[in-house]
Parts: sequence; structure tokens; C-alpha cells
Amino acid sequence: MYNERIKRAELQSRIITATQAAALFRDQMVVASSGFTKAGDSKAVLKALAARAQEDPLQITLLTGASLGHGTDGILTTAHVLKKRMPFQVDPILRQSINDGEVLFIDQHLGESAELIHEKVIPKVDIAVIEALMLEEDGSIVPTTSVGNSPAFAAAADKIIVEINMSVPVSLHGIHDIFMAGNWPNRQIIPVTDAGTRIGSHAIKIDPEKIAGIVLTETTDSPAQINERDDKTRAIAGHLLTFFEREIRLGRLTHRLRPLQSGIGKVANAVMEGFIDGNFHDLTMYSEVMQDSTFSLIDAGKLLLGSASSITVSEACYHRVFNNFEKYKPHIVLRPQDISNAAEVIRRLGVISINTAIECDIYGNVNSTHIGGTHMMNGIGGSNDFARNAYLSIFVTQSSSKAGAISHIVPMASHIDNTEHDVDIIVTENGLADLRGLAPRERAKLIIANCAHASYRDELNDYFSNACKTGGHTPHRLQEALSWHTRFKDNGTMLRTVPL
Amino acid sequence: MYNERIKRAELQSRIITATQAAALFRDQMVVASSGFTKAGDSKAVLKALAARAQEDPLQITLLTGASLGHGTDGILTTAHVLKKRMPFQVDPILRQSINDGEVLFIDQHLGESAELIHEKVIPKVDIAVIEALMLEEDGSIVPTTSVGNSPAFAAAADKIIVEINMSVPVSLHGIHDIFMAGNWPNRQIIPVTDAGTRIGSHAIKIDPEKIAGIVLTETTDSPAQINERDDKTRAIAGHLLTFFEREIRLGRLTHRLRPLQSGIGKVANAVMEGFIDGNFHDLTMYSEVMQDSTFSLIDAGKLLLGSASSITVSEACYHRVFNNFEKYKPHIVLRPQDISNAAEVIRRLGVISINTAIECDIYGNVNSTHIGGTHMMNGIGGSNDFARNAYLSIFVTQSSSKAGAISHIVPMASHIDNTEHDVDIIVTENGLADLRGLAPRERAKLIIANCAHASYRDELNDYFSNACKTGGHTPHRLQEALSWHTRFKDNGTMLRTVPL
Ligand SMILES: CC(C)(COP(=O)(O)OP(=O)(O)OC[C@H]1O[C@@H](n2cnc3c(N)ncnc32)[C@H](O)[C@@H]1OP(=O)(O)O)[C@@H](O)C(=O)NCCC(=O)NCCS
Ligand SMILES: CC(C)(COP(=O)(O)OP(=O)(O)OC[C@H]1O[C@@H](n2cnc3c(N)ncnc32)[C@H](O)[C@@H]1OP(=O)(O)O)[C@@H](O)C(=O)NCCC(=O)NCCS
Repeated sequence: MYNERIKRAELQSRIITATQAAALFRDQMVVASSGFTKAGDSKAVLKALAARAQEDPLQITLLTGASLGHGTDGILTTAHVLKKRMPFQVDPILRQSINDGEVLFIDQHLGESAELIHEKVIPKVDIAVIEALMLEEDGSIVPTTSVGNSPAFAAAADKIIVEINMSVPVSLHGIHDIFMAGNWPNRQIIPVTDAGTRIGSHAIKIDPEKIAGIVLTETTDSPAQINERDDKTRAIAGHLLTFFEREIRLGRLTHRLRPLQSGIGKVANAVMEGFIDGNFHDLTMYSEVMQDSTFSLIDAGKLLLGSASSITVSEACYHRVFNNFEKYKPHIVLRPQDISNAAEVIRRLGVISINTAIECDIYGNVNSTHIGGTHMMNGIGGSNDFARNAYLSIFVTQSSSKAGAISHIVPMASHIDNTEHDVDIIVTENGLADLRGLAPRERAKLIIANCAHASYRDELNDYFSNACKTGGHTPHRLQEALSWHTRFKDNGTMLRTVPL
Repeated sequence: MYNERIKRAELQSRIITATQAAALFRDQMVVASSGFTKAGDSKAVLKALAARAQEDPLQITLLTGASLGHGTDGILTTAHVLKKRMPFQVDPILRQSINDGEVLFIDQHLGESAELIHEKVIPKVDIAVIEALMLEEDGSIVPTTSVGNSPAFAAAADKIIVEINMSVPVSLHGIHDIFMAGNWPNRQIIPVTDAGTRIGSHAIKIDPEKIAGIVLTETTDSPAQINERDDKTRAIAGHLLTFFEREIRLGRLTHRLRPLQSGIGKVANAVMEGFIDGNFHDLTMYSEVMQDSTFSLIDAGKLLLGSASSITVSEACYHRVFNNFEKYKPHIVLRPQDISNAAEVIRRLGVISINTAIECDIYGNVNSTHIGGTHMMNGIGGSNDFARNAYLSIFVTQSSSKAGAISHIVPMASHIDNTEHDVDIIVTENGLADLRGLAPRERAKLIIANCAHASYRDELNDYFSNACKTGGHTPHRLQEALSWHTRFKDNGTMLRTVPL
């Protein structure tokens, strides 16, 4: 059985248990793991490491592609294994520890971490744990449902532990496109000129001597949560589709649009699903993650090609796709995240990027990471890799939430990840603001009128007109600029409470 | 005389005066002009337009490469000609109007404006005014001391007015490298793999029928201000050179360093001059602007190649360079600003970028544009084109200024142009903070200890430790976060005044 997945016969003797693998780690090591938006992550070894730490405490720096599934980050946190963590996470237990200052988190552009490793800017990787579909005759690693940073980790690590996941169908063989640009002064062009261009090989070349152990697993990826489309996400998708139709009428886009990127979250997925009913055709995606909507669009004959660094889908979609993989395979490429998120390629392809904001301010600055300016949610992820270089950089958010207590359009963003220079379009269920070619004062009027919730609109207008009295290119009243956030903290609502 | 500079004979009859040229403009036109960091700008036509407007009022949208010289932006502002202005400026009179909300300013990444024009995201250019060294037989335009956005302007404009500047030596012929990547779906790779790679032609190809007039000028560029090195800039340069030596010892850099970018301002120039005395050799520059230091480094045999979009030097340097241009020519390439500032190339070359901050906060966010969070200084320029994609992104600033009344290290930046994700190193005359691989709480301690001025250090430490009590990945006390700026506005100093 497993022999078919370990084509290099001499490696078959390196099979060990997850517990044995966990014994290879030492305190203060730098550990890297595969895994990107919960896909293709370590299912066994990191958990065994947490179990071991209960009796034999140790602390590590953990690098990944992006988020891990199966609560692994939480389990590692509870076992006090994590000293430092980068570049992204979505785990509620880990998040709490980060915000308590216990785990040091480095929130990095997902497109950049591989380069920092190659350039030895972040510490040397001691052990890499990489989930694999199989090992080839030359020992190279065929990844599973994500590529993430695995090529960089495998190249940098002293030792590699491979987790062969027997549950992933071997029909995935061939969907990966592994390319490394190399380092200065020999850093190469990334010759992707179309969402589907293949530029590398199907597997990660390694020195097989580095393989310190092979662990067999059969746990599938954590399924993506399904968020039913609701009135708000439907309205946001509607505004965006109307906007695209207008751009087509103006001759700036065609019904093919441009290669699409859509971030995590229910809104982005709803927008993508919206394309099924529209007049759009021959679409392509150049994105980070393929979600359920990617496969719905392939089924509908609308999407020609999806390129990303992972496949993260619901349980139902997982079965549909992987039980019929030959159907989807010609439409899919999985790339390392420094290629899926490469500035060079995103700009060359003129990507249309759609990401979710935690909050936007009236001048178009976007907070993607910090609740109330202080508390980390997930991380910047690839949002700025795309927003910074996209042809069209779109941010979506609800206008308000928590029964109206939170306005997602605020006078001043309490933290800024995507600056006014990188945000073209803001959309809420109320409407869309096209900020291109507008000065800050013009943007403020448009964002307040089109995007803000009715119950906050007057106060935003008051803020803006008072701020204009003190002048400036970007008028603000600094003493009030963050008062909505402090009010929420004190009163549980950003709404101005009636004075006694 | 001028015939030698107008090689296409039929165009010689199109010579007109600046006043005649000014009559070609209409109210509400979109006008584009050559000019980048005051080099290669329109010397005659825009001024004649301002003069005309005194009697015959009109308003235009004005696009340039970057800043104009000779007070032209101020003269246009005073004549009420400017309705909208993009993407950069440095003029005190225009700045005032922008901050008064009279002129609408769009502060854009300098590397992006050409693409916005090609993609028709910003309005169609009616007339482009382009300073030229000469016109070739096919009508193509050879630029002078800058390229800027001129290729994009010439391609987009309905009409072109050429200013042939007779004062610029014809020996500049051949230093330009004009390349346009084209638009999606045919956007090309930008195949620059070394600071000196030439990928285009020496002149801007145009349809000669677009030339509506040729104006002869002989005014030289506005000279760059010379800022004498002082103790502070010397100290900043010293910290940086020590840092580079350390990186070399650690094996991350060699004495060739990487291609260097250095922004405008006295500190950046002082750092570059510092390389003359160091052990560095075979240096290259991949930058926006070549300043005096570029030529000092060529003279010293330290710099092999300088690539930029303009040459902006002091009067003395101007004469030295242009009277001996054959000596410098092999070491120089002038490119369009969407190539000098291309994400793709900056990342491929692994540029070391050095830019000046208005202020930095304790977590490493940088304000490059807004005094007190509201008032525009110059614009983001190319700072984030470089910082976002550089191998090493360095920001320099004094720790304090105005006799200690302003701290340039603040609890929270009052505006953010370069986010914590894009800032690797902060340097003041006090010291250097290497933020790579550090979480926000680690960064805060380092920035306060190494970079802040002694008279602000205790208060910054107090702020940080109080903020840590309320927790978060990035601890802040929002009600105090911007109080230093409001204090400066109210009291003329950020120093805590002694309570009565
Ligand atoms: C921004 C992001 C968190 C939004 O995701 P989402 O699923 O739409 O999140 P929500 O709108 O439900 O907000 C998350 C929580 O923060 C809360 N919140 C949001 N803004 C808040 C504010 N200003 N004050 C207080 N709480 C706030 C919400 O109420 C919600 O709380 P809950 O979980 O208790 O209900 C997510 O898209 C993200 O992490 N983005 C960054 C990474 C990225 O963009 N990657 C793109 C490429 S994959
Ligand atoms: C940031 C930048 C303005 C600094 O330039 P500089 O010449 O070193 O500027 P200074 O430090 O002298 O500061 C400019 C003025 O603002 C004032 N200032 C700076 N910070 C201030 C603050 N927080 N509050 C009030 N005033 C402040 C200074 O005191 C000075 O005032 P003065 O002219 O009355 O003396 C300049 O580098 C820039 O425009 N950068 C953005 C563009 C860029 O980086 N391009 C890079 C590629 S070329």
C-alpha cells in the first residue's frame, strides 16, 4: 500500500510513528510545517509534539505557509510549545496567547516569508514537517492540497519529516508547479504570463538524506466552514457585479474580466458565486486559495483556470472534487506561495483582488488585522501582496455588525495594513465607492455616502466637516479620530450615547 | 543650430513660442508634463500657461513624473490653474493650497501612475508637454535629465508639445532606456536582471503627427539644494555603515552590498557619501534619482552602475558631470519611472532601500507624507515602491527636531504610508533598530532604546508599559496614542509640560 507512495525504496525503511518523530525535536528549535489555509498541514507530528511537551516541556519557533487546521495551533499553544509563530494563524486559542503577549507572533506578507528564509533573514530551520502525497524515485516530495512555503522549508531545513497522507487521492499527482527563483545575484524572472503558465516541476526536489523520518497518516484536511449567503453578502456581491458591468460598458474590462483573487471569508466567496449567474465567461483565478466557489465556477463552465497555493473547501465539495479529480485537474495549478503571491506576477497579470477588511476609514485606509487597533485577529495574510500590485484592489466589509454596535467605516482606522494608496474600491451592503483618481476629501464624501451604515452617516459627516475646519490634505481631528474605538471599549457600542 | 536637434525636417516648421503653445490649452483639460525630482521638466510652456491664465482663466488637471523645478507648481497655483495635481510635488505654495483644500492632490506611488494612464483609470491626457534633448528622424523624442512618465504621457496624449532644451549637452544621447511593458493580456516581463540591463530603445517612439508645437528653451534644471553633512547625518550614516559591516560578517551581504536605492533628502545623500570611505566596492544603484553622491561614488571608483529615472544634482555637480559626460556615460542608465520603481525588478535585484521618514512609531509604522497626520508635505513618492519590495527596507530620521519640540519616534504614527510589514530597519542619530523577525512588543523596546531621543525615551517607555497592561498583539492606549501630536499643536512641543 504505502510502498506505492514511497517510490525511492531505500526510504521505505524510514517509516516511524508520530511519537518517534516528535522525539527528534529539541528545545528552542526552529520548526517549519506545511499547511496553508488549513490545507496540506501536518496532521500527526505537530500534535505528537504537543503531547510530548506535556511531559517533556520544550519551546519552538514555528513557521508555516499560513493557517493550520485541526486545532493544531491551539493544541500547541495549550501545551506551551510555541515561543514564536509566523507568518499567519486563525486559531482562537493561539490568538488569545498572542494578544496576551505570551506567544510572539510575526505577521508577515505571505508572499515574502520564503524569501526571508532563503536570504537567512529569519533563523535557520532545524526541522521541516511536510505533508506529502508521495515521494518520487529521486526522493522529491509531491505535496498534497497545498504547496505554501514547503519548497523553501525543505531547502532550508537540516532535517525533514515527511507525513504521507494516504487519504489524499494519487490523482493529485501533477497539479503542483514548483519553482524557486533563487537568490541574488542570480535571482530569476518568474516567467508566469498567464494564470495557467507552468514554469516548474511537479515535485519539491530535496536531498533524500535529509529525510529523518516518514510518518503515515490518513486524516483529511479540516473542512472549510460553509457560510450561507445572506442578504448582506448578496448585496455586496450585487454591487460588485454591477460595477464590473459598468467597467465593461466603459471599455476598461471585458466579460473575461482579469485574473481574479478572492480572499478568505464569506463575502469573498459570495462574490465569486455571484459570477455563476452573470454574463462573465472564460474567467481565470490567480489567487492564494481555491474555495468552493472555484469548483462551482468550473462546473458552470465559467472558469477556465484556477491557480493558487491551496485548495480549502467544505466537506461536501471535498468529496465532489477529489472523487472526480480527473475532471478538475486540467483547470488547476497549485504553486508555492511566493509565486501565487508574487508582486511581479500579480502586476503582470493585472489581477482583480477582493479581500475583506476589518474596518476602513473615510479616506480609504484599511485595517485587516487588529480589532480595536490592538488585538490581532488573523494576520495580514496575502491581502497586501494582492492589493499592492493588483490592477483593481477591492475591499469588502459589512457597514456595521454586532446589531449595529460596530461601524466598519470609521473616522480613522485604528491600525493600517493596506494604505489609502493601495485601495481602489470599498464595498459594503449599502453600496460601492470607486476611489480611483480621487483626493482624500473626495473619497471621504463618497465612502460616507455610499458605504457607511445609515445610523453612523451623520456622525461621520459631522466628523469630516469639523475636521475640514482645521484643514489639511487629509482632514482629521486627532483628539477624536480614535474615539469610536474607545467608546466601543467603554460602552459596548460605537454609537454616540444620548447625553444625560 | 536647432536643426541639428530636430532630425525630422518636416517638424522644423512646427517651432512656436511658449505663448503660442500656451494658447493650445483649454479649460478643464488634462495636461501631462515631463519632470522628475525637478529634472527634465517643462521650463517654458507651463509658465506661459500660468501667464495666460492671468487674463484668460482656465483650470487643468496636471500630471507629472514627480516634482517640477523653477517654482512652476507655485506659479501655476498662484494663477489658479491647478484643479487637480498628481502624483507628487514639493512646492511650498502648492502645498499650502493642497492643505487648504483648494487644489485636489492625488498622492500616488510613483511606480504606478504610468499603468493607471495606460489602463485608462485616470482621465485621458489631452496635451503632454515633454522636454527633449532632440527629435530623431522618425520623430521619436530623446528625453533630457529625466524620463519620468514621459513615455506613458506621449502614448496617451492627443497632442504633444515638445520643449527642446538647447542647454542640455547632446552627449546625453544614448543614456536613456525606454521600455513599455504593455497592457493585459499582453503585458510583458520586464527583463531587467541587473542594475545596468538595457531592455529598450534610447528614445520615446511617437506618432509625429501628434506634435502640435516645438518650443526652444535654454534654461537648465533647478539645482538640487546642497545640505552640508552635519553631526546628525554623519551619525546616522555611521550607524548604517556599521550595520552593513555586521551583515557582511554574518555572511548575509558582501562588500558589493546589493543594488542601492536612496531617497531624497540630506540624510540619504550623507549615507551614500559615507560609502566613499568604507570598504565597499563594485556598488550599483537601482534608484529613482541620481544625486551628487552618485557621481562622487563613480569618481571614487566605487560605483559601477547607476540606474534611475532622473539626475538631480547641485549646480557644481551639474557642471562637473555634463562638461565631462563621456566619462560618466558608461555608468548611467535613465529609465521610465514605472521601470525604475517596478516591484518586479526591485524584488528581483534585492534592492537595499534607504528613505526618510517624517515620523516612525514604536511598532515600526512609518509616516512619509503628513505633518501632524493631516497636512501633506510632499507625497509618498517612490518610498513604498522600494520599501515594499526591497531586500532591506531602511528608514532614517532625526530622533527629534525643532530644538527638541518634535519627537520623530511617536507612540502611534499619525498617518501611515509604509506599514510595519514593510519596514526592516529604523535609524536615527542615536542608533539603529533591526526589526526583522521581531514581534511588535520586541520592536517597541528596541526602537525606544536605540532610536528615540533621550528626552522622550521615558515617556515612550511609560506609554508602552501602560499599553501592555491592556494587552493586545500591538498594545496601545488609543485615548493617548495621538496625544503627542495634539500637544504639539496646542503647546508647540511634544514634550510633556510640567503640570501646574
Ligand atoms: C478581515 C477578516 C478577519 C474578516 O473575516 P470575516 O470572517 O469576514 O470576519 P468578521 O467580519 O466575522 O469579523 C471577525 C470578528 O471580529 C469582530 N470585529 C470586526 N471588527 C471589529 C471592530 N472594529 N471592533 C470589534 N470587533 C470587531 C467581528 O464582530 C467578529 O467577531 P465575532 O467572531 O465575535 O463575531 C479576514 O478576512 C482576515 O483575516 N483577513 C486578513 C487576511 C486576508 O485578507 N487574507 C486575504 C488573502 S486569503
Ligand atoms: C519625509 C521627507 C519630507 C523628509 O525630508 P527632509 O528634507 O529630511 O525633511 P525634514 O526632516 O527637514 O522635515 C520637513 C519639515 O517638516 C517638519 N516636521 C517633520 N516632522 C514633523 C512633525 N511630526 N510635526 C511637525 N512638523 C514636522 C520639519 O520640522 C520640517 O519643517 P521645516 O521645513 O519648517 O524645518 C522627504 O524625505 C519626503 O518627502 N519623503 C517622501 C517621498 C520619498 O520618500 N521618496 C523616496 C524616493 S525619492
